[in-house]
Amino acid sequence: MELRVKEVYIGAGGKNVAVLNYADASELDVRPLEKVKISFRGKEAIAIVDISERVVERGEIGLFLETLEALGAKEMDIVEVVPCERLASTFYIRKKLEGRELKEDEVMEIVKDIVGNRLSEIEIAYFVAATFTKKMSLKETYFLTKAIVETGKRLKLNKYPILSKHSIGGICGNRISLIIVPTIASLGYTIPKTASKAITSPSGTADTMEVLANVSFGIDELKEIIEKVNACIVWGGSLDIAPADDKIIRIENPLMLDPRAQMSASILAKHIGVGTTHLILDLPTGREAKLKSYASARKFLSDLKWIGKKFNLKLDGVITRAREPIGNGIGPALEARDCLLILENRLRGNLREKAKLVGCRLLNLVGVELRRAQEMFERSIEKGKALKKFREIIEAQGGDPNIRPEDIEIGGYTYDVKARKRGKISHLDDNSIAILARLAGSPKDKGAGVYLHKHLGEKVKKGDKILTIYAESERKLTEAIRFLRREKRIVVIR
Amino acid sequence: MELRVKEVYIGAGGKNVAVLNYADASELDVRPLEKVKISFRGKEAIAIVDISERVVERGEIGLFLETLEALGAKEMDIVEVVPCERLASTFYIRKKLEGRELKEDEVMEIVKDIVGNRLSEIEIAYFVAATFTKKMSLKETYFLTKAIVETGKRLKLNKYPILSKHSIGGICGNRISLIIVPTIASLGYTIPKTASKAITSPSGTADTMEVLANVSFGIDELKEIIEKVNACIVWGGSLDIAPADDKIIRIENPLMLDPRAQMSASILAKHIGVGTTHLILDLPTGREAKLKSYASARKFLSDLKWIGKKFNLKLDGVITRAREPIGNGIGPALEARDCLLILENRLRGNLREKAKLVGCRLLNLVGVELRRAQEMFERSIEKGKALKKFREIIEAQGGDPNIRPEDIEIGGYTYDVKARKRGKISHLDDNSIAILARLAGSPKDKGAGVYLHKHLGEKVKKGDKILTIYAESERKLTEAIRFLRREKRIVVIR
Repeated sequence: MELRVKEVYIGAGGKNVAVLNYADASELDVRPLEKVKISFRGKEAIAIVDISERVVERGEIGLFLETLEALGAKEMDIVEVVPCERLASTFYIRKKLEGRELKEDEVMEIVKDIVGNRLSEIEIAYFVAATFTKKMSLKETYFLTKAIVETGKRLKLNKYPILSKHSIGGICGNRISLIIVPTIASLGYTIPKTASKAITSPSGTADTMEVLANVSFGIDELKEIIEKVNACIVWGGSLDIAPADDKIIRIENPLMLDPRAQMSASILAKHIGVGTTHLILDLPTGREAKLKSYASARKFLSDLKWIGKKFNLKLDGVITRAREPIGNGIGPALEARDCLLILENRLRGNLREKAKLVGCRLLNLVGVELRRAQEMFERSIEKGKALKKFREIIEAQGGDPNIRPEDIEIGGYTYDVKARKRGKISHLDDNSIAILARLAGSPKDKGAGVYLHKHLGEKVKKGDKILTIYAESERKLTEAIRFLRREKRIVVIR
Repeated sequence: MELRVKEVYIGAGGKNVAVLNYADASELDVRPLEKVKISFRGKEAIAIVDISERVVERGEIGLFLETLEALGAKEMDIVEVVPCERLASTFYIRKKLEGRELKEDEVMEIVKDIVGNRLSEIEIAYFVAATFTKKMSLKETYFLTKAIVETGKRLKLNKYPILSKHSIGGICGNRISLIIVPTIASLGYTIPKTASKAITSPSGTADTMEVLANVSFGIDELKEIIEKVNACIVWGGSLDIAPADDKIIRIENPLMLDPRAQMSASILAKHIGVGTTHLILDLPTGREAKLKSYASARKFLSDLKWIGKKFNLKLDGVITRAREPIGNGIGPALEARDCLLILENRLRGNLREKAKLVGCRLLNLVGVELRRAQEMFERSIEKGKALKKFREIIEAQGGDPNIRPEDIEIGGYTYDVKARKRGKISHLDDNSIAILARLAGSPKDKGAGVYLHKHLGEKVKKGDKILTIYAESERKLTEAIRFLRREKRIVVIR
C-alpha cells in the first residue's frame, strides 16, 4: 500500500513507530503492536504500528523521528507499506526460550535485527529473558560478543599494545580509571578508556570525567584525541561501538536484569571495538557487589579469558573483597576532586592503593615485572608525570588543563554525620551510601554526593565527623537526611 | 512537576504513553522507556515516556488517547507528573524469572498492574517469559485464574446450571459450537458461549458467527440476549470479562508463546466470568494440534479439573485424536454454511458427529444418561428444534433469522484440486490447509477459504475434486495456488 508521509516529531527511544489510520491498518490487516515494513528509495525500515483516527488521514502514515531518519523520508514523500512477516530471529529467540542452544548465525541474526530496529521491545525482552532464565553457553556468549562487535563501529589505531581496564560495577567511589589511565599513559602506553554513565549508582566514570572535560565524542574525534595524547576517558554510549549492547541494556533496566552472558559480551565487545589487546579486570566481590563470591568471580574471569582469547585479547583480573566504598568522595565532583588530589600527590588512601594494585597488574600483563611496575607507577605519580598526562587528556577532550582541585565546585548545602560514641568503624554500608548520594542529587547534580572522612577500621572519638552529605538544593539535602534518619546501619561503630 | 496537557490523537494499543519535552524529561530525570506517574483530580495513570522537541514545549505533556481517557483529562488541563518508582509487581516478575514460586497476593499485584496499564510491554513480556520458561505450579495457576477473573467484569444470570463448551484450538474447521449451542439450548439449558476471533488460524468461532449475526456486545446487552433466548455465540474480546488475559495474549503473539498456566487461566477465567457451572472441553490431540499427545491432554484436563473445583465449576473433557480438519468448509462463510446445513438436517459427516460427541458429554455432565443424551441431541436436530433455536439466537444478535445456506456469499474466485490418480486419501495436512485458507484471504475476507470434498480414508478416482479454494480476489487466489504448487504433502493419495 502506498502512503504519504506525515512527520511526527516524537522520538520513542530508538524504536521505529508508524501511525496508521484505522481504515488503512484494517486494510493491511495489522493491529497495534504488530509491525509493518516501510520502503522508500531503496531503504527499508520495520516499524511498530500505532493507530490513530485523527493524526493521520486515510492514505497517510505518521512516522516518528527514528523512522524518518532510518528511511531518509520527509513530509509528503510516498512510501510503500506492507505487513511485516515474522522474522527468522523471532524463531531463534523462541528456540532459546525453549532452552535450546543457538548457532552462530542465529545469534548474529538476532543481534542484527536488534541493531536494525526490526525487533520490538517485546521481542528483545523475550531474548533477554531467554538468556537470563536458560543461560548461554560459553560458545553462545562468544557468538554474542562477536555479533555485537561486528554490528558496531570499530576504532582502528596503528598501535600495539593497546591497554585498558574495566571494573565490574556495584561499589561506590571506585574511580580508579581516572588514576590508572593517565599513569599508564604517562609511561608511554596507549590506553583508550571508554566508560559508562551511572544508571543506578551515584556516579559512573563518564559522569566524573565530565566534571573536568567533555566525554561525548564521535569515533573519528576519539581517534584524533588518542593519536595526540595516547589516552582518553570518554563515554562509551556516544561512540556507537556496540549499539546492540546499548539497546539490550535499556530493555534490561526496568527489571534490572543482568544475564551473565550479556554482561560478559557487553564488557568484551566494547573493548574489542576500540582495539584493546591487553585488558585488566577489576572484580570486587561481596554482598553488595555484582559478584557475590570469590568463586563466582573466578568463574567469570576464566570465562572471559576463554572468550578473550578468540579475539586475541589478553586478559587478566584482580579479585578483591569489597567491604566499603573505595575512596572518600562519592558523586561526580567529589570523585573528580579526589582523583586530582591523588595525581597531585596530595592524597593517599584506599583509592590510590587500589589504582596502583590494578594498574600494576595491567603493566604486568604487557610483560613488566610486578615489582618494577610498582616502582614505575609510584614514580609517575610522585614526579607529576601522571598529573601532566591527565592535564593533556583533559585539554584534548576540551576541558581546562589548568584546573585545580580547589576549583571544582561542590554542592553548597551540607550535612555532617558525627560519631555518637568513641570506637572503631566496623561497618560502612555501601548500598545505603549510594542511596544517600543519589537522594542528594548525584549524578545529575554534579556537586552532590557523600564525602567519607573515615574508613573501615579507623578509630573515632565522639563528635568526630564520619561523613558529609553535599547537595545543590535544600530539598534534596532534606530528602537525604530523611533517609539517613530512617536507616540504622549506614555506619556502625564498635 | 506541573505540566499542561496537550492531546495527542494516537492510540498505542492499550498502553499509556506520555510525550515530554527533552528539558522537562531531563529535569524529572526520566528517559524514554521509563515511566512517570501522572495525577489529575484524584485519578492516576502511569505512562511510558516518549521524548519530543517539537510536539510539546517546555511545561507541556502530550498524552496519547489511552492516557487521556484513564485520567479524564483534556487539552490545557494541568496535571502533576513525577518519575514512577519501581512497582512491587516488577520485583515479583523478577522473582518468577528466577524460578521462585509466587504467592497469591503477588500474582494479584501483577495482574492488577497489567489491567491498570501500569506495567510496560517489556515488563509484561518478562512475566510471560517467566511463566513460559519456569512454569507455574497448579496453585500459582489457580491464583492467576482468580486474579484474571477478579480484575474483570462478571455476567450474573439467575440460572442454574449454566453450560458451556470450549475447544483447545489448533484444528481447522472444528466449528462444533455453532451446532452444540443451539442444540443444547433447544433442550432448555442455558448456554452462553463466548468465543475468540482467529489470530493465526483461518477462522475463529466468532469470525464464523459474524457471517450470520453481530458478535460484539457489552455485558448488559449480552445479559438481555441470554435472558431472551437462553444462549448466545459472541466474541469474548468485546466483553471486558478477562481484560488481563487479552492484554497478556497480545504480548504473547509476536513469538506465539502459550505458557500452559496462562492457557489454563485464560480458558477458565472466561467461563467463570460468565458464570458457567458445567464446562465440557474438546481436546483434539496430534502433531498439528496444540496438545501433542494423549498423555499431555490428560494431564491438562486433570489440572483444569483441580482448578475448576475451586470455583465450583464442574468440568470434563473429550480427548480425540486429530488427524485431519473437522468438517468440510474452512473459512468463515464456508463454515457458517456447513453449520446451517447440519442444523437443517441436510448434511452429515465428521463435524456433526463430533458436535454430537462433545454435546452429549456436556449433557452427561449435568446428569443426563449418555444414551438418552444421544437420542435428545439427534432428535433436536432431526425435528428442527436446534435450527429454530439457532434462528432465535441469530435474531437476538441482530442477524437475519431467515437466512438459508444458499444465501451465504462465498468468494467468486475458485480453484479445484483434483486427484491425479485413483486410490485412498491417506493424508490431509491440517497446517497446510490452514495456510491455504489464510492466503486465500480467510478470515478477513469472509467468503474466502477451502472446501474439502473428501476426507481421510475416502476412495477417489483420477480427476475427482478433492478440495476447492475460494477467494474474493484474484490476487489472493493466485497466492494460495502458488503455495499449493510449492507444497508437496497437502493431500496424499495411496
